Amino acid sequence: MAFHETIQQLPSLQKSSNFFNPNTVIAICVFFTLLCLCIIIGHLLEENRWANESITALLLGLCAGVVVLLISKSISAKILVFNEDLFFLYLLPPIIFNAGFQVKKKQFFKNFTTILMFGVFGTVISFCLISLCAFYLIKKIGVTHLYTKDYLAIGAILSATDSVCTLQVLSQDETPFLYSVVFGEGVVNDATSIVLFNAVQSIDIHNVDGLTSLKLVGTFLYLFITSTLLGVAAGLLSAFIIKTLYFGRHSTDREVAIMIIMAYLSYMFAELINLSGILTIFFCGIVMSHYTWHNITESSRRTTKHGFATLSFIAETFIFLYVGMDALDIDKWKHSQASAGTSIAVSSTLFGLVLLGRAAFVFPLANIKNLVGKRDGTKIKFRQQFIIWWAGLMRGAITVALSYHQFSGTDNTSSEDALMITSTLTVVVLSTLVFGSITKPLIEAVIPRQAKSLNSDVTDNQSLEDLRLLFLENGDSIDDQDDNNNNGNNSQPPRRASSLRLLISNPTTTVHYLWRKFDDKFMRPVFGGRGFVPYVPGSPTGEADADTDEAS
Amino acid sequence: MAFHETIQQLPSLQKSSNFFNPNTVIAICVFFTLLCLCIIIGHLLEENRWANESITALLLGLCAGVVVLLISKSISAKILVFNEDLFFLYLLPPIIFNAGFQVKKKQFFKNFTTILMFGVFGTVISFCLISLCAFYLIKKIGVTHLYTKDYLAIGAILSATDSVCTLQVLSQDETPFLYSVVFGEGVVNDATSIVLFNAVQSIDIHNVDGLTSLKLVGTFLYLFITSTLLGVAAGLLSAFIIKTLYFGRHSTDREVAIMIIMAYLSYMFAELINLSGILTIFFCGIVMSHYTWHNITESSRRTTKHGFATLSFIAETFIFLYVGMDALDIDKWKHSQASAGTSIAVSSTLFGLVLLGRAAFVFPLANIKNLVGKRDGTKIKFRQQFIIWWAGLMRGAITVALSYHQFSGTDNTSSEDALMITSTLTVVVLSTLVFGSITKPLIEAVIPRQAKSLNSDVTDNQSLEDLRLLFLENGDSIDDQDDNNNNGNNSQPPRRASSLRLLISNPTTTVHYLWRKFDDKFMRPVFGGRGFVPYVPGSPTGEADADTDEAS
Repeated sequence: MAFHETIQQLPSLQKSSNFFNPNTVIAICVFFTLLCLCIIIGHLLEENRWANESITALLLGLCAGVVVLLISKSISAKILVFNEDLFFLYLLPPIIFNAGFQVKKKQFFKNFTTILMFGVFGTVISFCLISLCAFYLIKKIGVTHLYTKDYLAIGAILSATDSVCTLQVLSQDETPFLYSVVFGEGVVNDATSIVLFNAVQSIDIHNVDGLTSLKLVGTFLYLFITSTLLGVAAGLLSAFIIKTLYFGRHSTDREVAIMIIMAYLSYMFAELINLSGILTIFFCGIVMSHYTWHNITESSRRTTKHGFATLSFIAETFIFLYVGMDALDIDKWKHSQASAGTSIAVSSTLFGLVLLGRAAFVFPLANIKNLVGKRDGTKIKFRQQFIIWWAGLMRGAITVALSYHQFSGTDNTSSEDALMITSTLTVVVLSTLVFGSITKPLIEAVIPRQAKSLNSDVTDNQSLEDLRLLFLENGDSIDDQDDNNNNGNNSQPPRRASSLRLLISNPTTTVHYLWRKFDDKFMRPVFGGRGFVPYVPGSPTGEADADTDEAS
Repeated sequence: MAFHETIQQLPSLQKSSNFFNPNTVIAICVFFTLLCLCIIIGHLLEENRWANESITALLLGLCAGVVVLLISKSISAKILVFNEDLFFLYLLPPIIFNAGFQVKKKQFFKNFTTILMFGVFGTVISFCLISLCAFYLIKKIGVTHLYTKDYLAIGAILSATDSVCTLQVLSQDETPFLYSVVFGEGVVNDATSIVLFNAVQSIDIHNVDGLTSLKLVGTFLYLFITSTLLGVAAGLLSAFIIKTLYFGRHSTDREVAIMIIMAYLSYMFAELINLSGILTIFFCGIVMSHYTWHNITESSRRTTKHGFATLSFIAETFIFLYVGMDALDIDKWKHSQASAGTSIAVSSTLFGLVLLGRAAFVFPLANIKNLVGKRDGTKIKFRQQFIIWWAGLMRGAITVALSYHQFSGTDNTSSEDALMITSTLTVVVLSTLVFGSITKPLIEAVIPRQAKSLNSDVTDNQSLEDLRLLFLENGDSIDDQDDNNNNGNNSQPPRRASSLRLLISNPTTTVHYLWRKFDDKFMRPVFGGRGFVPYVPGSPTGEADADTDEAS
């Protein structure tokens, strides 16, 4: 726990309680006071469109760093050491779980192919491009002692976008399509970059051949699918347990506690068997909001909905404060021994590569999707492509954590390793400040308010309606539909042709329809869910239609 | 953080994720699985009157300890080392805060003098008696190498009752008087024993005179009053901030977040300036439920009420699981080098002293109170005295934490120090199992169900009603009342005399009435509170009358 690694050089203000290390107590007090300030300032700046909580936290962290630097007479700007464990064990899980728990499932699954395309292929493209360019450009600047592995790691590190900040900048209600694509991509992207990063660590650089990359693809698919299944299984298990045992009978605390604990357990278990905890807990959150959430009492529903959001909110603010304070780590800056010129050159090169790496996949992939997709409504307009590119440029805590892992793991960190850490920190701080503050006004300027919700929602709902009518007319199940086709019944040829066209052109909608039928027939009776638990008067189920449970 | 101190001897099952120490991951997985099991078993045994969550957790912890012991081939039963920081920094604050937040304030303040008497004087009596007897008895058993300080420490360690288990055994609704006295005493007792423990650490044994004990009393009073004031101040500050800024306007998450953070901050700040964090966060919880809770939105009210209870519930279960697993720490048992006979002798001596130490203050103090208090209704019957004695016999995590602090602080723990640790662990496990399981049936047997709520509630409500009528008749304020007396108005001498008698015999009720007036006139307009925030339809304020805000 990072609190215990507080710097001993910090002047011990006074002897504290017998039970604590006084520096731990001071560090926690400072940190929580700053958190309070962040929340208050964030509230006051809520209507200011340039600011958001991430930026406030980052700036406050930087200011606090300066103050500590002055108090400790330039010995150290840290009262906390950035700790990967603190981040991966305690701060990241609640954020990702809450993201899955609150995500608009309909939007998310409608755009699932787009999200996967950007999240997986996009990240790989970005990784390759950044690694390659870094390899050539950074050597030209004069930094020559890095290994090939380091460059590959830099590619993975800088490909990890910051989904936390995205959540604060984009609005799920105003731009649902953009939100679900950018945010969904962010989650898949986090998992992809961590998998890539781990792959880079384990690869034997000198024996790379075609098989290696094929193996990498296989590993990735295995990880993605098993992690997802594990998350789904954990969510279903929680739903089943709560439905069967009906905890609310005795105590609402137990329901909420078991949801929290099982979600966290799914994350840790995934990490234990070397899967991606992020993907697991994300899908666990989705399944929990679809089934488990409906099996608990009304009080617990409200408590989980707002409680999880609050925990996630605190963790997010904490992370940015943490990164802000850590950026002024004078030890690392001293240790890098680089001239201001070299530092600026490396930082700006990496910054440029982030922009380039993302552009290199957003625009091409979006245009490929536009070519494949036939209907006008699902096309990604250039303005939207621009926003997708822009909103994903922020780099955050995952970048910092991976960078520390790569460049400060060993005891004898070289000066060039320290330079890479300070450079990635600069990229993180700069990108959060610059892109974080400009994105909101930019979206308002690029996409006029009235045009926002037009995109793809209306047309898709229309086609879903078409499909329902179609099924109702031809019998109640998809099997009937097939039978009719086989019978060669040609009484209504023009309508049939159009129905078939609809089916083919709307695979997503068809899958969605089939899933709904399966869900109603097999899943909900076993695992609970809306309509399959006794209705309690005054329960927020109606309200939930609009937010937590809007899709299947 | 204890998770990082997992024993390295534990067989590393497989190489885990790159980012974690695999043993950390295994430890967390095992722990959270056990937590899940505890909750499920606790739910299934809810109607069983012998069991409760503490006992389940303790037994599960013991079983898990045995399993780990077998797997690791008797090398170690621990996958976690008991860590004072984990306990005092993360587990204790949510429990005590929630206790203050959910306590029935009316009952608590009505019995405030009784609670203080038991909590302060009682603990001191128990401390003196246990220290003295331990000094003579343990030497007789053959343990001769302990210092005087150690005996004094044992007195403080074994005087700390376990308020957590009490909460689960007594029912706030069925036995309100007993609950408030036993539980309230538990909180004050925790603070008192920690203060005593710290005092013992700092005392120079060889220069003890009358001044030292006077100083000790002064220190205690200073600590008690300033800690309480700090907690009240933190609670009022949070109420003021939330009322003034009206966070709910933008985001309900911020309200809840700021409540959590400010409560935790009050705890840490108290520890920073060497006050009692437990007292501070307890009173912070009381003030927050009286003012702050009414200033937040309806969703946040439900979220905080159930969310805090859930966090506290998880922390409690975690602690007992933790103590259970730790009890089988084979290293300590080996290290103590004591024969089974000596171990049993020391443990049973300490166990007996716990019983004696508590009996030595509960019965005398209760009878003193009965002599002083005139009215029949407020007398503590012998059956109730017995329950107060019995329900406070459990020893818990504070005992364990203090014991570790005293006897395993230095590197070269002597064999007799290890013996003291294993003995206190035995006392904790035994007392929780024995007293925890018997208390519920015992209460049912000793106090018949219909008689439970008779005690002191009815009579006190009656006298409060008398007092109100009196004030209404003689003018609206206490000043008028005094004026009337000074005027020598003798028109209704018999009534006046009885009113005066009422005032004198019911100081608590009078204070309560005055406080209500002050609260309505000065406090609530500034800090909010029931009736001083805009009424939202469907808000749980009505419901709250019964539980969270029932008193002033």
